[in-house]
Amino acid sequence: MIERRFSEFSQSSAAAGATIPPGTLRAPEGAISSSFDVVAYNKERCVEVDGADVDQMLALMDEGLLVWANVIGLGTVELIEELGERLELHRLALEDTLHIPQRPKLDDYETHEYLVARMPVSTHTLETEQLSVFLAKGFVLTVQEQPGDCFDGIRERIRAGRVRIRESGTDYLFYAVLDAVVDAYFPLLESIGDELEELEDSVTTDQGQDPLHDLTRLKRDLVILRRYLRPLRELTTVLIREDSTFLTPKSRVFMRDCHDHAAYAVDLSESYRDIAAGLLDLHLSLAGQRMNEVMKVLTIIATIFIPLSFFAGLYGMNFDPSASKWNMPELSWAYGYPAALGLMLACAVGMIGFFWKRGWFK
Amino acid sequence: MIERRFSEFSQSSAAAGATIPPGTLRAPEGAISSSFDVVAYNKERCVEVDGADVDQMLALMDEGLLVWANVIGLGTVELIEELGERLELHRLALEDTLHIPQRPKLDDYETHEYLVARMPVSTHTLETEQLSVFLAKGFVLTVQEQPGDCFDGIRERIRAGRVRIRESGTDYLFYAVLDAVVDAYFPLLESIGDELEELEDSVTTDQGQDPLHDLTRLKRDLVILRRYLRPLRELTTVLIREDSTFLTPKSRVFMRDCHDHAAYAVDLSESYRDIAAGLLDLHLSLAGQRMNEVMKVLTIIATIFIPLSFFAGLYGMNFDPSASKWNMPELSWAYGYPAALGLMLACAVGMIGFFWKRGWFK
Amino acid sequence: MIERRFSEFSQSSAAAGATIPPGTLRAPEGAISSSFDVVAYNKERCVEVDGADVDQMLALMDEGLLVWANVIGLGTVELIEELGERLELHRLALEDTLHIPQRPKLDDYETHEYLVARMPVSTHTLETEQLSVFLAKGFVLTVQEQPGDCFDGIRERIRAGRVRIRESGTDYLFYAVLDAVVDAYFPLLESIGDELEELEDSVTTDQGQDPLHDLTRLKRDLVILRRYLRPLRELTTVLIREDSTFLTPKSRVFMRDCHDHAAYAVDLSESYRDIAAGLLDLHLSLAGQRMNEVMKVLTIIATIFIPLSFFAGLYGMNFDPSASKWNMPELSWAYGYPAALGLMLACAVGMIGFFWKRGWFK
Amino acid sequence: MIERRFSEFSQSSAAAGATIPPGTLRAPEGAISSSFDVVAYNKERCVEVDGADVDQMLALMDEGLLVWANVIGLGTVELIEELGERLELHRLALEDTLHIPQRPKLDDYETHEYLVARMPVSTHTLETEQLSVFLAKGFVLTVQEQPGDCFDGIRERIRAGRVRIRESGTDYLFYAVLDAVVDAYFPLLESIGDELEELEDSVTTDQGQDPLHDLTRLKRDLVILRRYLRPLRELTTVLIREDSTFLTPKSRVFMRDCHDHAAYAVDLSESYRDIAAGLLDLHLSLAGQRMNEVMKVLTIIATIFIPLSFFAGLYGMNFDPSASKWNMPELSWAYGYPAALGLMLACAVGMIGFFWKRGWFK
Amino acid sequence: MIERRFSEFSQSSAAAGATIPPGTLRAPEGAISSSFDVVAYNKERCVEVDGADVDQMLALMDEGLLVWANVIGLGTVELIEELGERLELHRLALEDTLHIPQRPKLDDYETHEYLVARMPVSTHTLETEQLSVFLAKGFVLTVQEQPGDCFDGIRERIRAGRVRIRESGTDYLFYAVLDAVVDAYFPLLESIGDELEELEDSVTTDQGQDPLHDLTRLKRDLVILRRYLRPLRELTTVLIREDSTFLTPKSRVFMRDCHDHAAYAVDLSESYRDIAAGLLDLHLSLAGQRMNEVMKVLTIIATIFIPLSFFAGLYGMNFDPSASKWNMPELSWAYGYPAALGLMLACAVGMIGFFWKRGWFK
Repeated sequence: MIERRFSEFSQSSAAAGATIPPGTLRAPEGAISSSFDVVAYNKERCVEVDGADVDQMLALMDEGLLVWANVIGLGTVELIEELGERLELHRLALEDTLHIPQRPKLDDYETHEYLVARMPVSTHTLETEQLSVFLAKGFVLTVQEQPGDCFDGIRERIRAGRVRIRESGTDYLFYAVLDAVVDAYFPLLESIGDELEELEDSVTTDQGQDPLHDLTRLKRDLVILRRYLRPLRELTTVLIREDSTFLTPKSRVFMRDCHDHAAYAVDLSESYRDIAAGLLDLHLSLAGQRMNEVMKVLTIIATIFIPLSFFAGLYGMNFDPSASKWNMPELSWAYGYPAALGLMLACAVGMIGFFWKRGWFK
Repeated sequence: MIERRFSEFSQSSAAAGATIPPGTLRAPEGAISSSFDVVAYNKERCVEVDGADVDQMLALMDEGLLVWANVIGLGTVELIEELGERLELHRLALEDTLHIPQRPKLDDYETHEYLVARMPVSTHTLETEQLSVFLAKGFVLTVQEQPGDCFDGIRERIRAGRVRIRESGTDYLFYAVLDAVVDAYFPLLESIGDELEELEDSVTTDQGQDPLHDLTRLKRDLVILRRYLRPLRELTTVLIREDSTFLTPKSRVFMRDCHDHAAYAVDLSESYRDIAAGLLDLHLSLAGQRMNEVMKVLTIIATIFIPLSFFAGLYGMNFDPSASKWNMPELSWAYGYPAALGLMLACAVGMIGFFWKRGWFK
Repeated sequence: MIERRFSEFSQSSAAAGATIPPGTLRAPEGAISSSFDVVAYNKERCVEVDGADVDQMLALMDEGLLVWANVIGLGTVELIEELGERLELHRLALEDTLHIPQRPKLDDYETHEYLVARMPVSTHTLETEQLSVFLAKGFVLTVQEQPGDCFDGIRERIRAGRVRIRESGTDYLFYAVLDAVVDAYFPLLESIGDELEELEDSVTTDQGQDPLHDLTRLKRDLVILRRYLRPLRELTTVLIREDSTFLTPKSRVFMRDCHDHAAYAVDLSESYRDIAAGLLDLHLSLAGQRMNEVMKVLTIIATIFIPLSFFAGLYGMNFDPSASKWNMPELSWAYGYPAALGLMLACAVGMIGFFWKRGWFK
Repeated sequence: MIERRFSEFSQSSAAAGATIPPGTLRAPEGAISSSFDVVAYNKERCVEVDGADVDQMLALMDEGLLVWANVIGLGTVELIEELGERLELHRLALEDTLHIPQRPKLDDYETHEYLVARMPVSTHTLETEQLSVFLAKGFVLTVQEQPGDCFDGIRERIRAGRVRIRESGTDYLFYAVLDAVVDAYFPLLESIGDELEELEDSVTTDQGQDPLHDLTRLKRDLVILRRYLRPLRELTTVLIREDSTFLTPKSRVFMRDCHDHAAYAVDLSESYRDIAAGLLDLHLSLAGQRMNEVMKVLTIIATIFIPLSFFAGLYGMNFDPSASKWNMPELSWAYGYPAALGLMLACAVGMIGFFWKRGWFK
Repeated sequence: MIERRFSEFSQSSAAAGATIPPGTLRAPEGAISSSFDVVAYNKERCVEVDGADVDQMLALMDEGLLVWANVIGLGTVELIEELGERLELHRLALEDTLHIPQRPKLDDYETHEYLVARMPVSTHTLETEQLSVFLAKGFVLTVQEQPGDCFDGIRERIRAGRVRIRESGTDYLFYAVLDAVVDAYFPLLESIGDELEELEDSVTTDQGQDPLHDLTRLKRDLVILRRYLRPLRELTTVLIREDSTFLTPKSRVFMRDCHDHAAYAVDLSESYRDIAAGLLDLHLSLAGQRMNEVMKVLTIIATIFIPLSFFAGLYGMNFDPSASKWNMPELSWAYGYPAALGLMLACAVGMIGFFWKRGWFK
């Protein structure tokens, strides 16, 4: 999975890189061919068309319905191009939609708002795809890289005829989409939180596998996560504060709610990062401490036996006692051996006592 | 207790997460059923109703009394819903009240101010509950998760008929509530300060239990504490600076006082964090130093004995002196043994002297 | 001394804490009973009254003299209360004066400015006391916790009839007081600088006592010092920039000077902190390096002797040479012993050479 | 290559240094002699002149063509001087063009905008050259140090008659140049990302060469890269926000795109730096861990054998059993040897069991 | 040299400290007696007077010449005082001129601008002196502590009659002085860059002396350097942005150039600091790695010999083979000795193989 993340970076570098001249619409490498779905609704009715075309979409708009158009897959450049021309989308915004990855951002153009975000694909890994959102007077257009998104809740609410979404304008839909993206980060953060909990257990109890790799990986993931989330917090701030033709004051109140969530997600990711760093430090300190314990015990054992072995070696010397009375007379002394054993015992006890007093057995 | 903190995070993730569509009022999991108390007062009189209903509250407001309504427990959604409708509270604020945890924040709506804070539950652990405060023209509504809060002082002052609170408007009550919450963090900080003091003692004197876990825990707690306190500092800044329909200039002076306390709490938590980090570094350095001392002494002992053992081994060799005059003649020399002992002694003294000169006994 | 600092924190927590309801004037625990001194002056004359009362102060003000009133000790609440009423001081400011410690701050009220600072008590330790300063049209009121302050220079200048102070208004006196407080931090910083110099000597020359504790203490002291100084820098910025009824443009020029000093003190404390952290790192690196040197030399000695001891042990084996010609024939070889010695020597020289070549003696 | 980078710094110091008085145009040391190319175009036609002179350039401008003049090499001061005089370029801007290196910056003068950037020379090393860009009403003048740049894409687009560039003014050309420079950093970032990936593999699998030097080098390169990129991000912000005589609102939209790229490059370089730092920490931790494993196993082996050797030495002592019954009677005991071996085995098994129980073999 | 730097701090503390009452002009300790030089010029002529007096200066100003007065040495307070009175310099600025050291700053007074900077004294050490610059309508007054400065280039340009300086006003001279001071830091930065290069070589090749002290010193020097340079960057920002009576818009363009240099110097000092920190980390890691290599090789040698020595000891035991057939029968076995040697060899080879397989020889 690590490779995936890094290759995402590389891909990004290539995409944003020099080879593609500005103004060219070109499908990114490996993009799947696009499908186009439309949900149109107003207070009274709600129409869903899977596999729609642009004419259908415009017809629904002419009927006075609010239209949410969703493009899945960046492979069919013609579709993007046609949408761009007939919905008056700015060329640069279309380019950014196709040149993945972009940094999450909010650009306002004369005829529409353009928002880029990274949408989590999975609740357990850091996989994300780029989501582009166009907000204009009568429609919201979302463009995603792959099938599968976090908008099922919104679709449900539209189908179920929930008053708030059915009676509000496109700006509320825009909020709902953005809010769904922000909220999709929470299960990810939750799974990181759960993993941190488990890691804390394995760090403090020293059970389970070595948490070194996992903690390093979590720290790096949180670095990347923060890189995705911070622009979201910033752009929601902009959406609250600045005037925009496409956002009514009423939906700004909702946007504030979305901003709170984004700010909370950034806060959490930063707290988690601090906690992961603290756990890493604790793990290294504890590992060092345990290692030191081992070394200390072993060294103490070795050190106690070294003088004993010396004495044993001493009385193993072959000096000839018959040569003179100075040559190892203790060897032939009747109590030589018990005395030697006693000497060794005294020496060992003395050293143990010395080490004990110095607190080295603690 | 660690588990609790982390599961609070998880809970938060789940709550703020994608599963709950905006606009739904739903009691959080495990919420206790709500009870509703009302304190109403003006200059002349003061009424307290435990277990009140919304009608009673509105009746008291109609009598011209200022009303402080307090909901304990988030289990009874109907009560929240009724309060929301009859007091004209914004739907989003009601949702935030029930979707715990929220990031501490201040939102102003047309008909009321809405404040979320985390209120410490205990003076010794980092347990907190979410407190929602609604401030409108004639009432203050507080919603807390569990029974037990830090408002007894305010209730006392109202009952005792203290002039300042009885003669001021709801904005002063709002200040009093916020100030009580901020001040409730100080005993917590104090207990952390006390623990730091004890830990400093155990670090510097190397007595008591290992401070590694405690310091890591304190550092993490201070990370979380700062996450609770910083938004409080920010939102009090907003309350001082910005115009609000519901705050009179007079109570803004008091709010400044509350802001000072919040800023002081943030300052303290950051200083404590630096001090805890410093103690942790000191502890690790001291532990390393002590370990090094042990290793050095033990290695010196081993090193001194190694050549001695070599000499002992040397003269324990079984070369046959009778084979030639070159074969270990010292074994049969009259002073061989004393000479060997002398050699060992000289060697030991020489090494000790060398180590001493190099300052390795220091 | 460490205890003092920490208990200051705790005291603070208790004071700012929840137990004291806002609006109550209560002497802090252990406060000494207040004494009240007044210095009154104008261009022509200067009156000093020790142990004055409020009536005398007001009489002097009525004579058109500028009055500097100084309260020493927070024990006599009645005095503070009387001063508050007759001089129209805001209740909240009076409370902050008594509720020690407050964060250094500047509040402007309708009838007066109110400033809180921490004033160093000693030039060598981090002991400080809280100083409250009230600035109004005709007087400056300072309130300190204990006898002894850094204002003797100001008193001298007033007595000596120095033109600048005698002919300026209360705002100049206010500046002089604030400047004296800021300047009182410099001897403290100087003594920290001196200590850093000494510690640098003991770190680099490895003489004197272990600098670990001292450097940790200095780092912590500089954390606390910065917590005292930064608000001073901020509030002097406010005094320069913002309009105030009580400060004339002329004294704003002086205030700028005071701000420069405060900024310089913050700069110094931060540089010192970096330098202390650098010294700590250097000390730990050097200690580790020295330790490694020791371990390396000792391990090399041990390693050289280990094969030698092996050879000695080898020829100390008791295989019976008479059993066969394969059994240790070298023992009875005429040059066996010299050959064994030569083998050992060659082995030792070879290893020393190998280690030398690898650069392990460096 | 390291030397190159550092000498670039030194060169910079010398250039910006005191020796060159302001107002002097002097070629930097080692500059190659300048060549001068001109591309002129409008909607209808496009003229390219290699080795042009200033007269030709002015003639083309008089024909109403937009002119992109490109100077390669800083050696011919006269050319720069002539361009400066006839195109009314500010003296200070000319000086900055020749005094390499400058910090990337944007200065606006009365008659033109002046931009300095560092342009990557290679896609795999951190080599950059200084690019100066002058934007005025009728022309864009670029000055680079060496042949070879990242503008081939722009030249292609002009030649190919692409509408957007051929029909826009000089400000679009200015954007195109700046965008090409920013985009030229992405292959560099990509190659750093690839290298990080490889390094992550060698860190986690512990294969390949030691990543210590490479990671340190990458970290330093990213420090320098950020120093190049951050001013670009800042100056594009200025170009978007502030009014300028030379930039039309239309090209400001494009400039925003360029700003997004610059911001993304800064983000990437900072993320990469964090990741490199994390890998470095992981590498050091893993290396320490592996080392500790080795030491532990070896020490355990040594420790187990130490008591065994002691017993062997004990029974190698030469006390004379015939001197008394206390002197090593076990030597002549019929089962002495097997008992000794059994004792050793028991001792070894006991220690191994003890170590196992303590979890030291994990 | 270290002492010098620290005593500079101390001096500073004392100077800015409480002992000197505001408003007193007093020569700093150890100041040399002042000398006074004047350079006066306009378009046509240029007069230089060494050892001038204030009358001469005023006379030259009356002739309509721009005057650059330079005071060297702070010892003669009377001169400063006279200059202050006759040139209408503000008392506080005069005090700051004498109370060294001040933090670099820019104060504007009614009759003049006042700038304080630290001017490098040497190109290779961090020695600086305080430079005070007064800018008024007809003159620039510079006050430096010691003879020797970085203004020779400016003097040359005035003498040589260079148009730009001779025809501009005092504000250009002011710019030239400030620019010379900023540029004087570059040789210093260059020498630090060179030293870093050399240190990088000795770190990576492990040759030359230990870089630990040098890197620590460089890091500290860069901390101090940044403390000098950052205020210069800030005050040039102020000079560009804010209106001032004494600076014409024309010289603001030049000031921008000076600001660029200051910003570049700050950037360089921060990059260098990061690089020095990176080198320090690399050095410590490499030293640790080398140490670990040594320890590992030595420990492996020791570990291999330990079992061998055990076997040697085993067969050196003196159990009596004649006591029973169980007592060391191998001693009298014909092939006992070769078998023992073979056992040892097998054991050694086995261990080496085991270590090799585990990759411990890498």
